[in-house]
Amino acid sequence: MLISDVAGTTTDPISKSMELLPLGPVLFVDTAGLDDEGELGLKRVNKSYEALRKCDLALFVLDASRRSDDFSEMAREFLKESRKRNMPTVVVINKCANTVATALYRECFDIPSDIPIVCTDALSGSGIEDLKQVIIKCAKQDDSPIGLTDGIVKDGDVVLLVTPIDSAAPKGRLILPQQQVIRDILDKDAMALVVKETEVKAAIASLGKAPDIVITDSQAFKSVANDIPSDMPLTSFSIIFARQKGDLAQQLKGARALATLEAGDRVLISEGCTHHRQCNDIGTVKIPKLVRKIQPDAQF
Amino acid sequence: MLISDVAGTTTDPISKSMELLPLGPVLFVDTAGLDDEGELGLKRVNKSYEALRKCDLALFVLDASRRSDDFSEMAREFLKESRKRNMPTVVVINKCANTVATALYRECFDIPSDIPIVCTDALSGSGIEDLKQVIIKCAKQDDSPIGLTDGIVKDGDVVLLVTPIDSAAPKGRLILPQQQVIRDILDKDAMALVVKETEVKAAIASLGKAPDIVITDSQAFKSVANDIPSDMPLTSFSIIFARQKGDLAQQLKGARALATLEAGDRVLISEGCTHHRQCNDIGTVKIPKLVRKIQPDAQF
Repeated sequence: MLISDVAGTTTDPISKSMELLPLGPVLFVDTAGLDDEGELGLKRVNKSYEALRKCDLALFVLDASRRSDDFSEMAREFLKESRKRNMPTVVVINKCANTVATALYRECFDIPSDIPIVCTDALSGSGIEDLKQVIIKCAKQDDSPIGLTDGIVKDGDVVLLVTPIDSAAPKGRLILPQQQVIRDILDKDAMALVVKETEVKAAIASLGKAPDIVITDSQAFKSVANDIPSDMPLTSFSIIFARQKGDLAQQLKGARALATLEAGDRVLISEGCTHHRQCNDIGTVKIPKLVRKIQPDAQF
Repeated sequence: MLISDVAGTTTDPISKSMELLPLGPVLFVDTAGLDDEGELGLKRVNKSYEALRKCDLALFVLDASRRSDDFSEMAREFLKESRKRNMPTVVVINKCANTVATALYRECFDIPSDIPIVCTDALSGSGIEDLKQVIIKCAKQDDSPIGLTDGIVKDGDVVLLVTPIDSAAPKGRLILPQQQVIRDILDKDAMALVVKETEVKAAIASLGKAPDIVITDSQAFKSVANDIPSDMPLTSFSIIFARQKGDLAQQLKGARALATLEAGDRVLISEGCTHHRQCNDIGTVKIPKLVRKIQPDAQF
C-alpha cells in the first residue's frame, strides 16, 4: 500500500481479507482520510462514508501525534454519523504511547461511553492484539441460531453428499455450501461420503449399511431420488441453507401458492447472485420452467 | 471505485478476484496510470511497475480517444519493461470504435507482433468477451503435469480422507488442500469418505469393504496409522501436494540426510506461510522437534 504524509494519498478504499478466529472470515476496508480536501478530496470523503454502509464494524483511527483540534470536528461528525446508522464503532488512537490519556480523548471528542477506545502503535505493533480482541468482541455475532445439519445429522451418522460438477463449478475446488456442509458434518463427529450424481448407486453399495441421510445438489434431486430406496431420507443443500437463512415454512407456503395463481396474476422473481449470468440462468430460465410445470400458460 | 478525469485519481492498486473459466481463479489488479505526474505521481507509477512483479499477465490499456503522441513514450517504456521481464502482455485499446486501425497502433508504438492487441469499449461492453478469451489464451497454463491423485486413485475407488479440525481451521469451512483433493477424487469418478481423526475406525467399519487408500492430514499420521490395518495404503495431503508441486524424490533425500548430520553442520529451515505465526509454529516448533528426534543435540 502506498503510504505518505501527503493528505489524499489513499483514494479508493483498499480491502484485505483475513481469518480472525474465532470470528471467522473478515474483510478490512481502509478508506481515504475524512480530513481530505479539495474537489477530489470531497469525492474521497464521500467514498469513505459510502464504505460505512457496507461494513459491520467501524474502526475510527486518530493520530495521537497530531494536534487534537485538527480533527475534533471530523471526529464529532463521524461519531454522529456512525451513531445515526447504528454502526458498532471502535475508536483507535494510533502512534500513541502506552500511557496516553484515553479519558481525555473521550471527553475532548464527546466519545460516548459505550464506544471502546484502543491505543495502538502500528509501527511497533503494540496494542494490535488488544484491538483484535475488541474487534472480536464488538463484531456482530453470527445470527444463525441453527447449525446447517442440526437435527438431521448426529454423532456417528454416515451422510451421503451428492455434488455434481457442472461447467460453472470453480476450477479444482468445491463451492462454498458444499464445504460448509462437510465441515458441519465433521463438527458433529459424523462422516460425509462425497460423490458425484453418477456414483450414487455405487456409493450406497460401498457402504456396509444404508446412509443415515442423503443430501444432494438441487439440480440432481430427481435422478438421486430415482437412485436411492424410497424410504431413505433425502434433502438438498438449498433446503438446508433455506432453513438456516430464511423461513422454510413461509417458502413452502410460497411454493404451494403457485398452484392457486389465476390468469392475470403477477409474480415477482427476485434473484441475487454475484456471478455473471450463465446458460440456464436461475431467474430467467430455471424458475420460469418450473413455474410452467404448474401453470403452463404463465408468461415471463 | 472512484473514477474521474483527473490524472492521479487512482492511487493504490485495486484488486478484484474472479473465476475465469476454464482458467480458474484470477486476480485483476488495477494500477495507477503510468502517465501520472508530480512527486506522489512518481510514487504511484513506481507502485504500478511494482505490481508487474507479482502478476502473470499484463494488460496495457490505452485510451483511443486521446492523442496517440500523449502516450507514445509511455507505451514504448512499458513494452520494453514487460519484454525485459518476460511478462506475457496484451495491449487493450479502450473507448475504441470497432474499426480502429490496430495495425496503426502496432506500428506507431512498435508493439511486437507476438503481443496481441484487443479493442474494447468498457462502457458498452463491446470487445470484453474477446478480451476474456485472449486472457485465457495468454495466461500461463497450469504447469502441474500431474493431477493430485493421479496414479493413486481410480474410477470407482473409495478414498478415506482424514481431516482433523484444529483451532487454526477456518470457521465453518475446509482448508483449500482438502477441498482440492475432494474435487480431484470426484473428477476421477471416485468417492471420498471425509472424517475426523477420531472417526477413522468407525469410518472403516461403516464401509462394506476396505477403502482403496487413506489420505490423512500430516498431524494425524501416526494415530491414523495405528487405527488402520497395516496393509492399507496410507499417505498424507502434504505428500500429495509435495509430489505435485515439487520433487518428492529430492525431498526424501533431504529428509534422509538428516541422519547423516554431524556436529557443527548448519541447516537452513525456510518456511513460507501467509498466516500469522500461531502456537506450534511449523518452522520454529514442529520441524525442530522432528529434527531432534533424529539429532537429539541439534540446536536452533
